[in-house]
Amino acid sequence: MRRSEFEVVDHEEIKALLDEASYGVLGTQGEDGWPELTPLNFVYCDGAVYFHGSKVGQKMRNLKAEPKATFSVSKEYAIIPSHFLDPKLACPATAYFKSVLIKGHAEIVTELQHKADALAAFMRKLQPEGGYAPIVPSDADYEPQLRATSVVRIRIEQMTGKFKLGQNLKEDTFAKITEGLAGRGRELDAETIALMKAFCPHHREQA
Amino acid sequence: MRRSEFEVVDHEEIKALLDEASYGVLGTQGEDGWPELTPLNFVYCDGAVYFHGSKVGQKMRNLKAEPKATFSVSKEYAIIPSHFLDPKLACPATAYFKSVLIKGHAEIVTELQHKADALAAFMRKLQPEGGYAPIVPSDADYEPQLRATSVVRIRIEQMTGKFKLGQNLKEDTFAKITEGLAGRGRELDAETIALMKAFCPHHREQA
Repeated sequence: MRRSEFEVVDHEEIKALLDEASYGVLGTQGEDGWPELTPLNFVYCDGAVYFHGSKVGQKMRNLKAEPKATFSVSKEYAIIPSHFLDPKLACPATAYFKSVLIKGHAEIVTELQHKADALAAFMRKLQPEGGYAPIVPSDADYEPQLRATSVVRIRIEQMTGKFKLGQNLKEDTFAKITEGLAGRGRELDAETIALMKAFCPHHREQA
Repeated sequence: MRRSEFEVVDHEEIKALLDEASYGVLGTQGEDGWPELTPLNFVYCDGAVYFHGSKVGQKMRNLKAEPKATFSVSKEYAIIPSHFLDPKLACPATAYFKSVLIKGHAEIVTELQHKADALAAFMRKLQPEGGYAPIVPSDADYEPQLRATSVVRIRIEQMTGKFKLGQNLKEDTFAKITEGLAGRGRELDAETIALMKAFCPHHREQA
């Protein structure tokens, strides 16, 4: 990361984004020489990213040929228009976001109990209201389904957070942007202001 | 794409997603052997994807070393819980989404007028309310900024749409899911129902 003021090293902050985001984008090496990107629902647990899919798809072939996998999770909070800061130039326009970048090695989960555990974590995240029987290999209704599904684990070797939330701003610019967001009042604008204050080095020192 | 029922070939549908989505994920080949993924604001125009950035960042180095670039744009509409379809098994759980995958060659835009045109298109998309002077190289306030900014064009060589919106469903399953979504009533659920109807091959035949 070129600009260290946006780097987030707090694991709790990173984990919160990974728990909130329902999906991320998987990057693998494609057979055609291009990076292959696939948006995927996922769960982050036990130091790994898990997702599932078909046994016969392109991404499984790619991961078997080259297990180096990258996973990107991001959430955009606000487009900051230039006119919050400058009446003439477009240049100050930017976007505030949270992102996490994960690099690791992908491996196919083969043990039935491990597949069941990963899918159970996946369901707890994405269907928290429940409404299904516990996923266990001993259940004869689940057992063939567990065999038929591919579960992939990305063992995380590197994980970096980049949150751009105005940490680089001087006080007067910070004030103009928070005032602009308060006046605009879009869905995530109030939350963006709260995050700007929470992540501002100056505000943090005062806290 | 393994399952052709989800493939979208209508360029207007693909363009609409690219115009609506404020950002996508760029995939390049990283120096470390992993795909490098970067979430980026972008604009799609004249058969290309444009974004801007610093001249000295990692993604510029990667693109110069290997110009094959992939760009992924996606929007998740609904997590479909298993209990809409099955009182016991978790297996029917899925997600409905639109996604577009672009592969092309990246090139640095060097001509000042072309940079200005790309940034003007970028601003029209992301700051449609205006509030800035036209971006032209002849403006002495813009000229040095235009020189200092890197603008990248990805010339699109392949673009595929994958929209998963229940196109594969039989009538009774389709009805259970639309009823479930109507009863749940989350932010995008009504829009998801409308999209399911619009993309359903059966409904389309009737239209």
